[in-house]
Amino acid sequence: MNGAETLVKTFLAGGVDVCFANPGTSEMHFVAALDRHPDMRCVLCLFEGGATGAADGYYRMTGRPAATLLHLAPGFGNGYANVHNARKGHSAMINVVGEHADYHLRYDAPLKGDIKGVTGPVSDWVMATMDSLEVAQDGAEAIRAATARNGQIATLILPANTAWEEAEGPADPLPPVKLHRPRPDQIAAAAQALREEGAALMLGGRALYGELARLAGRIAAATGCRLMADLFVPRIERGAGAVAIDCLVYPVLENVEILKDIRHMVLLGHGQPTSFFAYPDRPSTPERADCRILNLCTPQMDLAFTLQELAEATGAADVEPALLPLALPDLPADPEAAITAEDVGRVVAHHIPEGAIIANEGVTSGPPMLAQMRQGPRHDLLYNPGGAIGAALPLSVGAAIACPGRKVIAPTGDGSAMYTVQSLWTMARENLDVTVLIFANRGYQILRGELANVGVTEIGRNAERMFNVESPELDWVALAQGHGVDGVRVETVGAFTEAFSDAMNRRGPCLIEIAC
Amino acid sequence: MNGAETLVKTFLAGGVDVCFANPGTSEMHFVAALDRHPDMRCVLCLFEGGATGAADGYYRMTGRPAATLLHLAPGFGNGYANVHNARKGHSAMINVVGEHADYHLRYDAPLKGDIKGVTGPVSDWVMATMDSLEVAQDGAEAIRAATARNGQIATLILPANTAWEEAEGPADPLPPVKLHRPRPDQIAAAAQALREEGAALMLGGRALYGELARLAGRIAAATGCRLMADLFVPRIERGAGAVAIDCLVYPVLENVEILKDIRHMVLLGHGQPTSFFAYPDRPSTPERADCRILNLCTPQMDLAFTLQELAEATGAADVEPALLPLALPDLPADPEAAITAEDVGRVVAHHIPEGAIIANEGVTSGPPMLAQMRQGPRHDLLYNPGGAIGAALPLSVGAAIACPGRKVIAPTGDGSAMYTVQSLWTMARENLDVTVLIFANRGYQILRGELANVGVTEIGRNAERMFNVESPELDWVALAQGHGVDGVRVETVGAFTEAFSDAMNRRGPCLIEIAC
Repeated sequence: MNGAETLVKTFLAGGVDVCFANPGTSEMHFVAALDRHPDMRCVLCLFEGGATGAADGYYRMTGRPAATLLHLAPGFGNGYANVHNARKGHSAMINVVGEHADYHLRYDAPLKGDIKGVTGPVSDWVMATMDSLEVAQDGAEAIRAATARNGQIATLILPANTAWEEAEGPADPLPPVKLHRPRPDQIAAAAQALREEGAALMLGGRALYGELARLAGRIAAATGCRLMADLFVPRIERGAGAVAIDCLVYPVLENVEILKDIRHMVLLGHGQPTSFFAYPDRPSTPERADCRILNLCTPQMDLAFTLQELAEATGAADVEPALLPLALPDLPADPEAAITAEDVGRVVAHHIPEGAIIANEGVTSGPPMLAQMRQGPRHDLLYNPGGAIGAALPLSVGAAIACPGRKVIAPTGDGSAMYTVQSLWTMARENLDVTVLIFANRGYQILRGELANVGVTEIGRNAERMFNVESPELDWVALAQGHGVDGVRVETVGAFTEAFSDAMNRRGPCLIEIAC
Repeated sequence: MNGAETLVKTFLAGGVDVCFANPGTSEMHFVAALDRHPDMRCVLCLFEGGATGAADGYYRMTGRPAATLLHLAPGFGNGYANVHNARKGHSAMINVVGEHADYHLRYDAPLKGDIKGVTGPVSDWVMATMDSLEVAQDGAEAIRAATARNGQIATLILPANTAWEEAEGPADPLPPVKLHRPRPDQIAAAAQALREEGAALMLGGRALYGELARLAGRIAAATGCRLMADLFVPRIERGAGAVAIDCLVYPVLENVEILKDIRHMVLLGHGQPTSFFAYPDRPSTPERADCRILNLCTPQMDLAFTLQELAEATGAADVEPALLPLALPDLPADPEAAITAEDVGRVVAHHIPEGAIIANEGVTSGPPMLAQMRQGPRHDLLYNPGGAIGAALPLSVGAAIACPGRKVIAPTGDGSAMYTVQSLWTMARENLDVTVLIFANRGYQILRGELANVGVTEIGRNAERMFNVESPELDWVALAQGHGVDGVRVETVGAFTEAFSDAMNRRGPCLIEIAC
């Protein structure tokens, strides 16, 4: 048994059984080892950003890390942006990065690079395996590191010879790392703060969906505090039956308004709210100057324990949480009308099945669309906590593989979707049940607004050409077809309604280009 | 005048007048400054790998650095692989990476990342500007760093507030960094070695084309040595009228055979030849064990001076170099036959105009194609010295912008082309005269061979699915159309001949998908 095979066996023993891959020569033995283990699901991505983003989506929906298989430093570089996004959202991920055979590293071969250098800035744990006999143990350590602190990025650098040389056997799973917990006096102080006038509980991580969100809902009902979340959260449950959580928005000054009455903010699974960017003469953070912030439980700490203790301390255990009722928006009136993002949201709210997963990267079109869906059928919304565009399509791939029984919808701007457009092919190959919605606004719409935000009022030809994806326009139906995915372009409310309801009534990938 | 404008003016004063850009909010003031300077040519790329690869191609054809404009750490990450390739080929490049306003860095905003961390491993020079008053001077230093040592990667990190705050004015160009030169005794030793039986002069950099190549040709004619080059060189002149230079190949054991009689190897502008990868039981370097290697002039040293001195020392100044005569291959006989890579080379050799630029990334199909073209019309061949795939389309963009009067041909595998497929759109927008040839072999053909090279003989379903880009097949005509480029698919010699000669008789981008 060679090193590569001990690694695959170690991963499987540790519950890591999906691998998003874009391998090269240095990973051939790992690929060969995968061959002998059909219980490891290998998903080929035609670009590494597709692999790392898919691993992120997979973790968000399962709570279990996937592996990625990447080819030396440039391969990791290609996946860097979506590792960044995953890390900002505290997703667990195990990157296996092939390296030259160790004895070949003394030469300047074309692909020789500084793998530790490029992986380090976005990894919580990096290990370069030194010997085939250590591969299995390093693999077990990688799983332990990835699953520590509610999810980390673990990167294992695997020199080719450690994969092909003889080894002994797989390593057993290691015990998980224990989560830190707040002290009782911190719990008590937070409980007291939440009962004050103008109190908010700012939630993150697993507290935004499922049982923990309901527990937070009980606390809010018992104390009268507001439940809040950032806009850029990795996953939040919404729609009928979900706990009511108010989300921040993108514009800084609107967030200042949203938080204008909050005098006590308890952080639980999320850091201090921050503007996405700094702008001249605008604040970097949106809270009142006299707002007291209690950092009760960082994203890396024990969220479940903290919520349970807080529920206890606030007498919330038997209080029912306020849940959102179903309240579908009106459907757009005129089927011949040109379509807006709001219209898209209205139609989607009426047609999505319960349990849909929305991987949003409509940077400007997403918020008005999502506002219409807030009290539609229950769904999970995946946002982009790292802000690096090119996330939605890969996230959808990972989410669809994680949850084969659930519809995945990926609303995305055209500019964003182009970054990792290759993910369309993986959707086709794996026949994933993903409906991609392209808001074809012909450009980086967000930048048109941002230019004014940073104080630039005149736009000339050089700038226009940096924001507009025109001359030529992208043809998304052709792009979809090129990747093996059915696509349709719609320009009216009626055409979108028909295309979207068709998509909901079939399985498999499709793309709808929305002229807007 | 703000910091951004002083930077643009400094770049223009220093001869940097092309910027391949994919900007975001943090670069808005730089974009606004570009607006006031139409003499700076801005080229939008829909993915950062397209921007960095284009800057590489631009440098290879002009010898002058272009700027790139990238959005924080993930934006650089997206461009990492082609910066790696550029650096391995000793291209100069100036990356301007926008950063958050410095006072915003204390917060954990979504896009906050370790820009020095991700840029460092592939940059020769990194500077983070601290103050708007220093932007111009840092820009001048960046140009000096990029153009030092025959071409380096310079990365300037520009916090948003240093771009928007007031500054004084542009900085004057700095004097260039002086190149190191070999000592006279090293020149003499090299001259003597080249006269020995079994001597080779291994060339790199600017010694592979133009006047310096002809000077090397004189030395070869005077001494009887072989002129050699690596396969993965950034630029080499070939075809009728070019100096005869023998190139190494990809397979290790073939290189051992090619070098079996070489006992004295003088390195001039290139490092020691190395296998692309290590394989079990194969050597890491191809030369004889008793081959004496003289490292006369590293790629960073003064190649022109060294060649002139060497010509003097070998009495070559008045010797005529051996130049390749025109020798067109036979055209394929049967127009109805299925097409091979050799056939492609035969047809291309007959139809390309003199002065064409070939940016090759046909990893398996390129070599047999190129062999047919070696004595066709004179052309420049750009290979990929870094080995990270996804280079050919961006390189073509940069080469076409550098040389608007020359035809650019980009032969590439389908797997490689997918990495930076977004470059097709830039070709369309800028109406670049690029003909893309896709060898549609439906997979990572190279890996099929590499699996055997590393000793794996059985291929199962998991492995097959990692090599084959099938189920579904990519439709390159649709992909081209989606990006605004005309495409055609050909399956026979006759159809390719017609499509290629059409492409040579028109201007502007087109794509030919070659079924093979």
